[in-house]
Amino acid sequence: MLLRIPVLDHGYLEAIESWGSDERIVEAARMSTGKGFLRWDEGPCPACGTMDEQGPGCHACEGKGSVRGDVHLLRRLWTMKHATPFEMAGLVIEVQAPIFVFREWHRHRTQSYNEMSARYMPLPNVNYIPSVARLLINSKTNKQAGTVAGAEELTEGVAFIFQESLRHIYAEAETLYQQALRAGIPKELARIHLPVGRYSRMRASANLRNWLAFLTLRMDQAAQWEIRQYANAVGEIIAERFPRTWALFTEGRK
Amino acid sequence: MLLRIPVLDHGYLEAIESWGSDERIVEAARMSTGKGFLRWDEGPCPACGTMDEQGPGCHACEGKGSVRGDVHLLRRLWTMKHATPFEMAGLVIEVQAPIFVFREWHRHRTQSYNEMSARYMPLPNVNYIPSVARLLINSKTNKQAGTVAGAEELTEGVAFIFQESLRHIYAEAETLYQQALRAGIPKELARIHLPVGRYSRMRASANLRNWLAFLTLRMDQAAQWEIRQYANAVGEIIAERFPRTWALFTEGRK
Amino acid sequence: MLLRIPVLDHGYLEAIESWGSDERIVEAARMSTGKGFLRWDEGPCPACGTMDEQGPGCHACEGKGSVRGDVHLLRRLWTMKHATPFEMAGLVIEVQAPIFVFREWHRHRTQSYNEMSARYMPLPNVNYIPSVARLLINSKTNKQAGTVAGAEELTEGVAFIFQESLRHIYAEAETLYQQALRAGIPKELARIHLPVGRYSRMRASANLRNWLAFLTLRMDQAAQWEIRQYANAVGEIIAERFPRTWALFTEGRK
Amino acid sequence: MLLRIPVLDHGYLEAIESWGSDERIVEAARMSTGKGFLRWDEGPCPACGTMDEQGPGCHACEGKGSVRGDVHLLRRLWTMKHATPFEMAGLVIEVQAPIFVFREWHRHRTQSYNEMSARYMPLPNVNYIPSVARLLINSKTNKQAGTVAGAEELTEGVAFIFQESLRHIYAEAETLYQQALRAGIPKELARIHLPVGRYSRMRASANLRNWLAFLTLRMDQAAQWEIRQYANAVGEIIAERFPRTWALFTEGRK
Repeated sequence: MLLRIPVLDHGYLEAIESWGSDERIVEAARMSTGKGFLRWDEGPCPACGTMDEQGPGCHACEGKGSVRGDVHLLRRLWTMKHATPFEMAGLVIEVQAPIFVFREWHRHRTQSYNEMSARYMPLPNVNYIPSVARLLINSKTNKQAGTVAGAEELTEGVAFIFQESLRHIYAEAETLYQQALRAGIPKELARIHLPVGRYSRMRASANLRNWLAFLTLRMDQAAQWEIRQYANAVGEIIAERFPRTWALFTEGRK
Repeated sequence: MLLRIPVLDHGYLEAIESWGSDERIVEAARMSTGKGFLRWDEGPCPACGTMDEQGPGCHACEGKGSVRGDVHLLRRLWTMKHATPFEMAGLVIEVQAPIFVFREWHRHRTQSYNEMSARYMPLPNVNYIPSVARLLINSKTNKQAGTVAGAEELTEGVAFIFQESLRHIYAEAETLYQQALRAGIPKELARIHLPVGRYSRMRASANLRNWLAFLTLRMDQAAQWEIRQYANAVGEIIAERFPRTWALFTEGRK
Repeated sequence: MLLRIPVLDHGYLEAIESWGSDERIVEAARMSTGKGFLRWDEGPCPACGTMDEQGPGCHACEGKGSVRGDVHLLRRLWTMKHATPFEMAGLVIEVQAPIFVFREWHRHRTQSYNEMSARYMPLPNVNYIPSVARLLINSKTNKQAGTVAGAEELTEGVAFIFQESLRHIYAEAETLYQQALRAGIPKELARIHLPVGRYSRMRASANLRNWLAFLTLRMDQAAQWEIRQYANAVGEIIAERFPRTWALFTEGRK
Repeated sequence: MLLRIPVLDHGYLEAIESWGSDERIVEAARMSTGKGFLRWDEGPCPACGTMDEQGPGCHACEGKGSVRGDVHLLRRLWTMKHATPFEMAGLVIEVQAPIFVFREWHRHRTQSYNEMSARYMPLPNVNYIPSVARLLINSKTNKQAGTVAGAEELTEGVAFIFQESLRHIYAEAETLYQQALRAGIPKELARIHLPVGRYSRMRASANLRNWLAFLTLRMDQAAQWEIRQYANAVGEIIAERFPRTWALFTEGRK
């Protein structure tokens, strides 16, 4: 059972709890026809013995041996975008990530959030430094991930210097933060110069339909590399708990 | 463990699955201060021995023995309407109820639904007949539950006759339904004369915050008596799975 | 200005109010780059005179004459599913439709609804009778719209008889309704035998993104013919108020 | 007509567009009884001449002269929390505020957002410096707005020094930002040390019900002073466009 997956230099993603299953999704979908989940059996039709992979139920014996329908039904739900049965399962996670990642994450309005608050407690001094390899990933094709017009070609040496500059300004920010707190500046104001690269922590909950919508956007090449690492970690957990749905999701992304 | 609770003459409500717990709610709320769930212990403070019921943590020893804070925190979340931690738990149910109850239910837009469909399968011939006792509950104070202006005083005898008339027209509707289906009327049209008193079936899922919002409206005296019976059954399940939250909810309703 | 569009035998759809415009959608999208709406001009680039249809802004003069970008930006938003700018416009309608249509409609949880209530007032005696032509549309390919197994081939004569039977049972239901109301049965119970073919009335409001999601599902061949007529009417109003967005939507459906 | 309201040192809030009105809210609520908006007339009942302020319609003549009911209906909707009619009106605004204010704002998941993105464009160098008067507002009663345990008493002199330190670290952050951009660091990484006190800009849209829920939380004393200034500005716009609803809202907050 996957527990805590390390992400970036100081972040993590941890599965707190999941509910539902691939079977429950089929059961919910079968409400429309008054039936429930039967079994995944993908062998020959128990009624007529034919190996038939097309359509729901066995075509050879005209659906009389329809116990094999569940594999097909799940596929059809996914490919035809019958999305509501996927709302009958879900996942709660805990995640530590830089504030700029949470800024993107919180735009997903179908999740529930409980986050650490700098109004209640001083934020721990944990900040994100991108690796040199990461700094050198500069997409020419992705406008958002690109450089400004007229920028120089980034070199490894300059990437090292940028890391050093980050460390320096992060340290300075922390010093001012501690001084301000001690001097009696209210917590909610003492933190306003803290960088968006500082780590925060939250719990997030959503149903499976909405997690998959999140992953569709955040595993995409157009998403920022950092949030993609978190999305991939969410994907690992979903793959473990909902393997059949995950197989359909990854198949659909190709 | 409560499973299937009978409701009305042919309905039921069944707990399929719940997630989270009173403890998980506290844990999620504690994200804001970077702490988690400790324990419910309501005895004397383990640090200083004082019995102190006010505020979060032990006041006598200035919070050093704050393990007793969880009881107080849950109460404070509820009374101060800090609702998001209650989104970290939830419940999936299956319910069989008359269509007119589902019409009210589906106005709650924060739940997920998968319902039986008359477009996919002929609806079973199960219909709601209110009991005579129920027919005689006529609220003088509740406009919605009242009679039209100038109506007679309902007698027990007339209530019996109304039951009989319902049985008659329900039977007639079923006969026409079966005839129409056999005659080749598409399923989606053969059902348009079916009464809103016919039973349907669905799965519904929501987080605890939204279930409690549902109950606030649907356990209320202003709600129709029929949906109130279903709301009470949801309440029984919540009481069993989330006893501390339930205690606060019922306390708040008085 | 389109006002009240008749739908089915006794229904209608009426535009109450819309907000936003194709221009506002572009303005909102341009928040991300700090720019606003410029103009739709689709002629040659005013800066360099070149006719250039590719990409945002004029490629020939490297974006210096970017006033033509708005046409392209709107298209890119739509085709790349950048959906949030389409939430900055919307539409309020009033609609009269059979209850079974509202049952499907209310599954769309992103709309706001205010509907006539049989608990507050006796429902007017207006009921849906499908035309013979409509009854004879029986999809062989669409399972939901189809007949039950073993059904006869529907003839025009039988369709006429079904219409007659509907009129008969509708009248009977109305008679019982009036008798029950007069006899002192509470309004909320006197209506439980009324058919799902009876008309109700509501106001519905949603932003444009969610109206288009509604139309994607409800203008589809898999949707019941009746709700499709209402969806088409919504489409007529959107076409009038948001012509450029509508053009992209219809283009995308082909 | 209110347009752009200045907020904090460099922020603003601007009304882009509103829809609906106090009258439309009444019209929507009257869907339940099949009636519409009549008039606000608060003088004597036109049917019987009596001055009657209680209940919906005129009590003296038993509702026959019910034209005065609209004032009472709006009040009853509000006080009894019949919230859905307030979803039939709404407001689109544009707002410039520090990132830490947007972090709180975006937790409201029923609004639509389009925000400036540092992935698309370099963020303008505009940063928040709290006034000395603001720095000295230190709530003893509000835990979130308070200082850390053991902090000194904040003096005016130290507040000046904190302002100066903010200016210094903001300038340093901007210098590093510009250097990094020029050196070829991708825009999405060159900004990770920027402070949460930097201003961003967005459009936000919501219906009136959800704006009022936002104001209930964000005009409250427990909300951070900065977001309260923005909430007050939203209130000014709502007061102007929906004066009767606003009067009920403010009355209810006392």
